[in-house]
Amino acid sequence: MRLLFLGTGGAQPTKTRGLSCICIERNGEIIMFDAGEAAQVAYLKMGLGWNKPMRICITHLHGDHCTGLLGLLQTMSMQNRTKPLEIFGPAGLEEFVLTNIRILNFRPTFTISVSPISPGVIFENGEYEIHASHADHSITAFSYVLQERDKVGRFDVDKAAALGVPRGSLWGNLQNGSAVYTDHGIVYPEQVLGPSKPGKRIGISGDTAPSPELNKFFEGCDYLVFDATFLDRDYQRAVDTRHSTATQAATLAKASGVKNLVLTHFSSRYKDSSRHLTEAQKIHPSVIAAEDLLELTLV
Amino acid sequence: MRLLFLGTGGAQPTKTRGLSCICIERNGEIIMFDAGEAAQVAYLKMGLGWNKPMRICITHLHGDHCTGLLGLLQTMSMQNRTKPLEIFGPAGLEEFVLTNIRILNFRPTFTISVSPISPGVIFENGEYEIHASHADHSITAFSYVLQERDKVGRFDVDKAAALGVPRGSLWGNLQNGSAVYTDHGIVYPEQVLGPSKPGKRIGISGDTAPSPELNKFFEGCDYLVFDATFLDRDYQRAVDTRHSTATQAATLAKASGVKNLVLTHFSSRYKDSSRHLTEAQKIHPSVIAAEDLLELTLV
Repeated sequence: MRLLFLGTGGAQPTKTRGLSCICIERNGEIIMFDAGEAAQVAYLKMGLGWNKPMRICITHLHGDHCTGLLGLLQTMSMQNRTKPLEIFGPAGLEEFVLTNIRILNFRPTFTISVSPISPGVIFENGEYEIHASHADHSITAFSYVLQERDKVGRFDVDKAAALGVPRGSLWGNLQNGSAVYTDHGIVYPEQVLGPSKPGKRIGISGDTAPSPELNKFFEGCDYLVFDATFLDRDYQRAVDTRHSTATQAATLAKASGVKNLVLTHFSSRYKDSSRHLTEAQKIHPSVIAAEDLLELTLV
Repeated sequence: MRLLFLGTGGAQPTKTRGLSCICIERNGEIIMFDAGEAAQVAYLKMGLGWNKPMRICITHLHGDHCTGLLGLLQTMSMQNRTKPLEIFGPAGLEEFVLTNIRILNFRPTFTISVSPISPGVIFENGEYEIHASHADHSITAFSYVLQERDKVGRFDVDKAAALGVPRGSLWGNLQNGSAVYTDHGIVYPEQVLGPSKPGKRIGISGDTAPSPELNKFFEGCDYLVFDATFLDRDYQRAVDTRHSTATQAATLAKASGVKNLVLTHFSSRYKDSSRHLTEAQKIHPSVIAAEDLLELTLV
């Protein structure tokens, strides 16, 4: 699994930071969180491919988090994308997408579905779930967690043979977690499977102030990408605009038992993110500051 | 006067070319032609300033020519722009701007007017006129000409004194082109003014196939920035999509007596624009291929 940072600037782009866009790439699929302006340019630079299985989760309807959808959808069409694309986000997102497709005269070559979400599980398949929670921002906003399902342990064929399970569909049943009946009695999955590998839990805050709800929502994340728009000295601005300081991000991450914290959405008023990092590292032991085009490979 | 190329790619951005955006800067004012995605990033890189007197002319409602308006307007608001902004373009542009301002929850700090245009003079002041013409594209599209007024020649104070024109308001009248009556008889402007300097004429094609109408419209341009999406070998694609080849751009420029031709809107299928340049230079003696962030200072 890779965690990819396509845009790490807050509100306004700078010469070195684009607007919010983060992707999780896993098993050849892309799950994108927000699509700020020029997301397609970073997407292109990172070589992610226009016809990948893909889902897009939008945190809120501020321009710096969603206007990049338009160019992304248009370029995918020009690249003859055929795979359907699911987009999730707050009410109003569907109007944004459909109205602009009409006004801008473009014809998607693929099916686009836009689903308004509420807190809870918004998508699940055999491999992972995506959860949403209310964030605390100046307009309706959501945070997301991608929770992978635990990976089944290695199937021990010798043990299975020794226990008298014949090669065939029963092996699959055991691998899928079901006990099977053989001529020699019942065999349970744990008798033939190695230790399972816990699925990764990745949190994406979007724009938000810290909140008790998010504290709970992000509990136990392996990686949490959190709003760190401001430094301590601009704390009051963070409060007023419903964003977070790097210190607040680290405090929440620590309280939630987050293993690794990634700061993002830096205000364009700061020259760089070194001070955000310093302030957060005083509180949490594992913090990095995201930069555009940063790739983290999670093993 | 400076001619600034903020984005020179056609339809899709590449790693080195952004989407259509060209600015004329004159006397501290910006006249922008199209605002493709990420126009604000190039605008920032070129250091043009968020509170300049400004007009924006949109050629047509394809996303690669106008979605950048949204981020531009939003960032200007965050930069507390106060000066009004006039936007001109095809019918539908007003809906695009106003609908997105509503959906994206942003509050402009300045007055935005959006005026639907038809061919003819769409704006004029004491210094220049902006003319529009129908272009020949797959949807309603316009081309533009910025025509500066001729600059009055140098006022010769010695000659004025010798002719008995007293210092004062009569000097202004002569400079503005009016004859004045003095105690010694009538004095005509040409008696006291040096040769006038012809205003520059700059053409911007937007996306278009060549047409007799544009041939006439761009007559005598000092600089013409023209659609050169394709090479000769993709001539049929140019015809089918209502774009131009570099050869067609040069042929039109030559027939229109254009002094200097600037090719732009290169398709992302080509590695670079060197062949466009070669093909156009076979026909027109003064051609350059625009690159992102290119500045031309016109004297």
